[in-house]
Formats: sequence, C-alpha cells, structure tokens
Amino acid sequence: MNNVLVVGSVALDTIETPSGRQDGILGGSAIHFALAARHFARVQLVGVVGQDFPEEHVTLLRRLEIDLTGLEKAEGQTFRWHGRYKGAMNVAQTVSVELNTFGTFRPTLPQGFRGTQFLLLGNASPHTQAAVLDQMKGPKFVLLDTMNLWIQTECPALVDLAQRVHALCVNDEEARMLARTPSFSTAIRKILEMGITALIVKKGEHGAILATRDFRFVIPAFPTETVVDPTGAGDSFAGGFLGYLAGVGVTPSNLRKALLYGAVMGSFTVESFGTERGAALTRSEVDARYHALCEMISL
Amino acid sequence: MNNVLVVGSVALDTIETPSGRQDGILGGSAIHFALAARHFARVQLVGVVGQDFPEEHVTLLRRLEIDLTGLEKAEGQTFRWHGRYKGAMNVAQTVSVELNTFGTFRPTLPQGFRGTQFLLLGNASPHTQAAVLDQMKGPKFVLLDTMNLWIQTECPALVDLAQRVHALCVNDEEARMLARTPSFSTAIRKILEMGITALIVKKGEHGAILATRDFRFVIPAFPTETVVDPTGAGDSFAGGFLGYLAGVGVTPSNLRKALLYGAVMGSFTVESFGTERGAALTRSEVDARYHALCEMISL
Repeated sequence: MNNVLVVGSVALDTIETPSGRQDGILGGSAIHFALAARHFARVQLVGVVGQDFPEEHVTLLRRLEIDLTGLEKAEGQTFRWHGRYKGAMNVAQTVSVELNTFGTFRPTLPQGFRGTQFLLLGNASPHTQAAVLDQMKGPKFVLLDTMNLWIQTECPALVDLAQRVHALCVNDEEARMLARTPSFSTAIRKILEMGITALIVKKGEHGAILATRDFRFVIPAFPTETVVDPTGAGDSFAGGFLGYLAGVGVTPSNLRKALLYGAVMGSFTVESFGTERGAALTRSEVDARYHALCEMISL
Repeated sequence: MNNVLVVGSVALDTIETPSGRQDGILGGSAIHFALAARHFARVQLVGVVGQDFPEEHVTLLRRLEIDLTGLEKAEGQTFRWHGRYKGAMNVAQTVSVELNTFGTFRPTLPQGFRGTQFLLLGNASPHTQAAVLDQMKGPKFVLLDTMNLWIQTECPALVDLAQRVHALCVNDEEARMLARTPSFSTAIRKILEMGITALIVKKGEHGAILATRDFRFVIPAFPTETVVDPTGAGDSFAGGFLGYLAGVGVTPSNLRKALLYGAVMGSFTVESFGTERGAALTRSEVDARYHALCEMISL
C-alpha cells in the first residue's frame, strides 16, 4: 500500500447548524483528509496540537492506522474554530477563530515522510506550503489546497506555488476569484493558462470538475438528502481523490475515478457532525456509493 | 422521420442583457423548441400570432421545414415579452408582458397532428395543456413544461396533468417549489412520489438531471464561455430532448442521450440573441458538441 502525506490543520471545532450544536469536536483539514484517504492508502499526518488535545482523539487516529509520527504536541492550546451554517448551508459563517499553536506552526517533516510520493498541501499560507514542498524529495503527485484569504492576499505566491504542483483544488467561488471573472467556464480556462497542470473545482451540491489542458471531466455530487454539517467536506473530497490516486497510481483514467471517490467521501462527511460518519465508514460502504455515482453518469 | 408536435407560444421579444438590446425579435417557447427539435424529427407547430407578425419569420420557419399548418393568425397583436438580464444572468426580470392573441388562445389541433406520437405541452395553464392532451390519440411520449406561476396558482391541476404524461420538465427552483423543500435531492424524490414517471430538472450552468423511479442520470452543462441571451435555453433543451427521442425512439439508453442533446441545444441558444444561433445551426455542429459533452462524462 502506498503512502500519502498530509500537512494541515488539526482542530477542535464548535459547530452550529440547523441540526444542532457540537462543542470542541475533532476537526481540521488534516483530520478530514486522513479519515477519507485511509481507505485507499497509508496516511502520514503532519500537524500540531496543544496541551488541551484530548487523548481519545489520538487513540481514535491510531486505531484507524493514521501514522502520527508527524503530529507535534506544542505548548499552548489547539487550533479552535467556531462556525455556523444557516439555510442552504453552502457557506460557513465564522463565529470565532483561535489559531493558538497552529498560528506559529512551521511544519518540519519527519525524515521518513520526505520521500513519500503523494502529498496534500492543506490550506495554509502559500509561503508555509512552499516551505513544506521544499522538504520533499521529488514527490510524484502534489495536490494544493487553498482558500479565498490567500487568493486575496497572497495571489502571486499562490500562483507561483501552483505551478510547482500537479493539481490545484478550489471551490467555484475561489476559481472565479482567482481568475477574476464571473464566468465559471472562463475561470477554468484562465487558471489553466496560468501554468497550472490540473485544476479541481468543487461545486458542493452541483458536483465537481477536473480540468487539464487535455480534457475536462465533470461529475455530479452524490445526492444525499441528509446534510447535517458540511464542515470538512472539501478536505474529505481531497482525501478521497488523492488517497485513491496513491493507491492505484496516476493515469488519465484513474484521475477520473479519483474525482468520483472524492465526491463520495465528501458526501459521507456532510451526513453527521465532524468526523462521526467518516471515522465509522467501511470500504464497502464507500464502494457502494462509488458504484451508484458511476451509474448516474453512465450512458 | 418521426413527427414531434409542439403546442406553445410564438412571441415577439424585447431583450436586454449586458451584451446589448434587441427589440421585437422572434421568440416564444414553440419557436425555440422547434428550432432545436428540427435537427432530429419533423416538427409540427401549433400556436397563434397576430396581424403584426412579420412575414419574414414565417418564411424562415418554412425554410427550416417547420410544419406551420397549426399556426393560427388571429385578430389583434402577437404575444410580446420584454425581459432584462443582469449580472450572472440566471434569472430574467420581466419588464412587461402583453399576452394579446396568446391570452385567449385555446389551441385546436389540426386533424393531421392528433396522431403524432411525441408531444411537447409548452408552458401554459395546466387546464389549457390538458385540453390539448385531450385532443391527442394516445401519444407515445408527452413532455410537460410549466413555470413557477402554475406551481403556485394551479398546483393540483398541474400534478393531475403530470400524472397523465411521460415526463415533467422544470428548473431546480421550480422543483424545490413543487416539492416544498429546500433540498434538491429530497425534491426529486418527492416529485417522483407524486406519481410522475420521469422528471427532468434543468440547472442552467450546473447541468441537468433525469430521474425516474429506476435511475438517475446527471449531466453537466456544455461549458460555453459566450452567454449573450439565456432566453429560450429551456425550450431549446426540451426541443433537443424530445426531438432526439422522436427520431430514435424511447429506450432507457436513448433517454440518457436525449438529455445530452437537450443540454447541447440549450448551450447554442444562449450564445446569441433570440433565435439567431439556433436558426443557423447544422447537425454536424450539434453532433460535435454532443460528442464533446460525452467525453466530459466518460470514465
């Protein structure tokens, strides 16, 4: 089984949605990524927590065979995010953020992780992400995640970094922001013209698209009726996508299948608060939903 | 070549979009449907115009081999609609409507049209639509179009009628309105539970879905960068869908292909004002876009 390395946030989230409220539950991009990717590849996690991080979460992650060699426990508190979703739940409203130990985190990769061939650069400043990439020994496939903040404040550094990786992952609003156009189709073309090899755009309930200079592959979302908490869906998507690729290797056909696995993993995550659904999932549940999604796009 | 019958509006439209303004151009649901369906089947059109309807439009329609036996020229003026699109152009703002001859139109089908096997009931009051259906001799496939107005004001009559046809065609907002739920997936399930055999939901730039109790087929929109005027895109979609089915017959596989042809025909219509692009299209242009769309969904 191949390895996949994720460098990202580990958080304690407080989440309010129309379904209820949960306080201080396990979250963060690296966690949601890891829980999705573990079905397909061996996950190496690099992140930081504080002294308040509950031991039960460490126990859970170990039980799910996530390699925690790169999980640092620093002085201070764990990153905390408090978010709220209303109505159609497309956009999180941030109630408060305490970066804590994550604010000063400069990831140093364990030597044993530097040769890993599949890497997710979880959402962080492009400078921090570049410093991580600099520690790697020629990875085969690097997926870069980002957010509106970095597109607005660090666009040149972000585009420079995106040219060094194999795929950039954004949502549709971020794609339009990055390309500075209201047209989704134009945004995709313009981003590829920036010298980016492959672009993944997540469109929530409207599915996702994988675009390269050679092809576009467009898929629907898995039509779940149960949307409890969207937090982490994008990270689960990335975990399904990159985990699957790590498991089977990069080919044009596998890139397409990986996109479907991304959509599948995201669809499970929204069905419960935090990591509840993702931590309990089996591979056969994953594959059943994958095959159902394949059916929905088959002529 | 099979026949396909459309009963709907013929209009003179005034349209304002960010690309400019056009006054009194050829439009209406039956026209946009006919221009799309003509590539696949012989189109029979039933509608009404007034004394002001320019002869050049009749000449154009005849040249495109639309059967105008059912086009009535009544006392008074032609139906006129004035619409405006702004920003993302997802929603038309109606500046003014003059129903004129269309307001009192009670369609009487020519005897020669009553045995036609494929019928589009273009957007009208469900009572008017039912009166049209009553004149038909057991058609093989009837597609029912509607709009938010009838969902709000004539819901029981609309649902009754929808149970008598083979497919209902709505947009995503109308689907949620009809099912009284904010969840798109739930809306689809609930509408099928109303006793409707097949449901087509058009989602604009997000593509379309065909749902029956047996399967769901989900497709993306064709990614055109040129959006000049969205008027008639939904009718062109219906024309591509039903025209294709009339041409090749109804099978589960053809239903899926028909949905793709619907998306293709809609994508051409938005690229110019009114019927400009649609009237000039060739079948080879249509098929090229169809194959490009197939590529985008192929694993």
